[in-house]
Amino acid sequence: MKIGLLGLGTVGSGVFEILHERRGHLEKIYGETIEISKVLVKNREKKRGICREGDLLTTNPYEILDDESIDLVVEAIGGIEEAYDYIQYALNKGKHVVTANKAVVAKHIDALLTLAENNHRAFLFEASVGGGIPLIKPLKQCSLINEFTEIKGILNGTSNFILTKMMEEDLDFQEALKIAQELGYAEADPKDDIEGNDVARKLAILTTIAFQNNIRLEDVKYRGISNISRRDIKTFKKMGYSIKLIGKAIVQEKNISVLVEPVLIKNTSQFDKVKNAYNMVLLKGNNVGELRLYGEGAGKKATANAVVCDIIDVITDGCTKNTILREEKFKAAETKFFEGKYYIRVTEMNGDIKQEIDDLLKNKQVSYRIAEKEDFTIVTREIQGDVMEDIVKKLAAYGLSFFYARIEEE
Amino acid sequence: MKIGLLGLGTVGSGVFEILHERRGHLEKIYGETIEISKVLVKNREKKRGICREGDLLTTNPYEILDDESIDLVVEAIGGIEEAYDYIQYALNKGKHVVTANKAVVAKHIDALLTLAENNHRAFLFEASVGGGIPLIKPLKQCSLINEFTEIKGILNGTSNFILTKMMEEDLDFQEALKIAQELGYAEADPKDDIEGNDVARKLAILTTIAFQNNIRLEDVKYRGISNISRRDIKTFKKMGYSIKLIGKAIVQEKNISVLVEPVLIKNTSQFDKVKNAYNMVLLKGNNVGELRLYGEGAGKKATANAVVCDIIDVITDGCTKNTILREEKFKAAETKFFEGKYYIRVTEMNGDIKQEIDDLLKNKQVSYRIAEKEDFTIVTREIQGDVMEDIVKKLAAYGLSFFYARIEEE
Repeated sequence: MKIGLLGLGTVGSGVFEILHERRGHLEKIYGETIEISKVLVKNREKKRGICREGDLLTTNPYEILDDESIDLVVEAIGGIEEAYDYIQYALNKGKHVVTANKAVVAKHIDALLTLAENNHRAFLFEASVGGGIPLIKPLKQCSLINEFTEIKGILNGTSNFILTKMMEEDLDFQEALKIAQELGYAEADPKDDIEGNDVARKLAILTTIAFQNNIRLEDVKYRGISNISRRDIKTFKKMGYSIKLIGKAIVQEKNISVLVEPVLIKNTSQFDKVKNAYNMVLLKGNNVGELRLYGEGAGKKATANAVVCDIIDVITDGCTKNTILREEKFKAAETKFFEGKYYIRVTEMNGDIKQEIDDLLKNKQVSYRIAEKEDFTIVTREIQGDVMEDIVKKLAAYGLSFFYARIEEE
Repeated sequence: MKIGLLGLGTVGSGVFEILHERRGHLEKIYGETIEISKVLVKNREKKRGICREGDLLTTNPYEILDDESIDLVVEAIGGIEEAYDYIQYALNKGKHVVTANKAVVAKHIDALLTLAENNHRAFLFEASVGGGIPLIKPLKQCSLINEFTEIKGILNGTSNFILTKMMEEDLDFQEALKIAQELGYAEADPKDDIEGNDVARKLAILTTIAFQNNIRLEDVKYRGISNISRRDIKTFKKMGYSIKLIGKAIVQEKNISVLVEPVLIKNTSQFDKVKNAYNMVLLKGNNVGELRLYGEGAGKKATANAVVCDIIDVITDGCTKNTILREEKFKAAETKFFEGKYYIRVTEMNGDIKQEIDDLLKNKQVSYRIAEKEDFTIVTREIQGDVMEDIVKKLAAYGLSFFYARIEEE
């Protein structure tokens, strides 16, 4: 088995290292070596400290993509356009492709699975969601023999790290973000991680598999965590909750709602115990029951571990049989099914606006109790997500600074 | 793919039902049917309510084992001797075998994997540990590219159900056991579940895979939960702990300690949140990091789900390549590495014996604090597991009624 590696950044070098470290063991079992025979880099001269990789480096992707001795291409360059081009090219050249790139998978899953199937090649992406957690593969298999009704997960390590810091060290958002950036948990431009886009991509991938339905990225609504205040955090703690960025999909009859949003989680629940950069995914199927899978959601070794698992799968299995149907059984149903109590905090409010909000809530038949008197902080009774959205539109129209989150009792 | 099903009890009928329910979907994907063509039962006349199974029933196992049209045998009769005979016979006849039978796997894993390998057939047992949790398969794969250092799990639904009832409803052991029996969570003879044998079997299987080492059932020490008193439970709660039956394996250099025992778990930990018949397994590998896998540890549908996943694996993959090496890298090292504080409660004690125990602990240089004055209830400072065992032998020699448990702070 000869492998071409596109990219020698965090994931790429992790893959290189694991295959090198385990080469004896793998050879003992498979009786053949798994050899990385070429590596695409941007700069050949950069010092990397990976043994003997100097001979293997190239700056020309087509030295890998056109090399007929290469059986499998690992795409680890990230980004969308280029990665998409290379993956298509490799599949068309009869190579298997393994990627950790959630952005390209979420956007092009249908096209890429079709292309792989037509070329009788594997297209695998275990590392694209949940880092080291064995997730995509069990989910693919379970989706064949289960009707799934719910997926729920903490799927972004960066935002979970920030929220953990805010909760545990009493920091406000900007302070926690800064620490995350200093420690390498957040990028210089943290937008995708903190605004929910990243979770939306992962959730689109998981739901497409679980529900055997073509869930487009546009079907996933999302919002992030950047306007949570330190005072909110204090109130959450007093109420017995922690705040998490949750991606969740619910199926009801022919409708599916897929949503990424901050959620208040009871401090006695398992999700509350998912700290720092860890991820956890809950899956509910009619046969398998409830599963919760927890592990490192990102990081060099855990992600590379998932990539190497995919490579091993291709060796042992071929994996050329696609089992992910992309049917159109379910209709995207916005936030209608996200029922619950909601926490709402509105800052800097004068008496008139308070009266208007009060009237608005009465009009919507939303009763509530005051949770905290500083700011205007309330907890509603159970309402539907679309009712909450109407309220939010009004609050935004008033030009108010506010934050809201659904409350989950489990 | 034609399947012969040995046994139509809980697991067997679950497999039958799932394959029937999902037949359309599986045919759509694989372009072939997965057909159960014969079923071994003890009594043909028993009413079962499974559609058209009447035609398929036989009371003669060799009608299945000698049937050359049958590709795969599912062993779901339970027990050891007979099951072992049938599995060997089937493999020798060139059939793949899937089983949910942890007793036979734990006892004969080495012989059965060798036999399957020699016959170029699959021998799979995902359902033998952790019910519906995708566990064996990810572990097999990860063990190829990780050095595992720790496995820890709640692996028995019956005992966990009993302990949950004792904690939540303030019951003593016998009362909780009775409820478990009435609800079908415990058998009439609950010994294997409550005394730790069942967890020992599962742990032997998991450790053999994870450490790629031949861990024999005799290497796994175990003790159960039947002498936990209601007063113990009260004390645990006051101290901020819950009690769980934990199977755990630790590797240090060339030594491995594998132990099943009651453990006090901090009430803020994820393991504390594993209630009733649920299972959770923690795995630590040098590349994948820490994984925690949670789900239904038993029950008809979850277990059958795992069996059907194995069947699908044989269809797509063949699975005739064994990847579980049974080397002798590690030496079984008793309880030496189980360091920690210990809870000890001794009942009905007179002043003389109290003095003797006090002296004993002083001799062993074990300092402690009194946790509760009713009975003689103490918490030791950090000591090694083998020191604790010496103390226990003495307590037993005095003929005292006592309970002890290691305390885990995570």
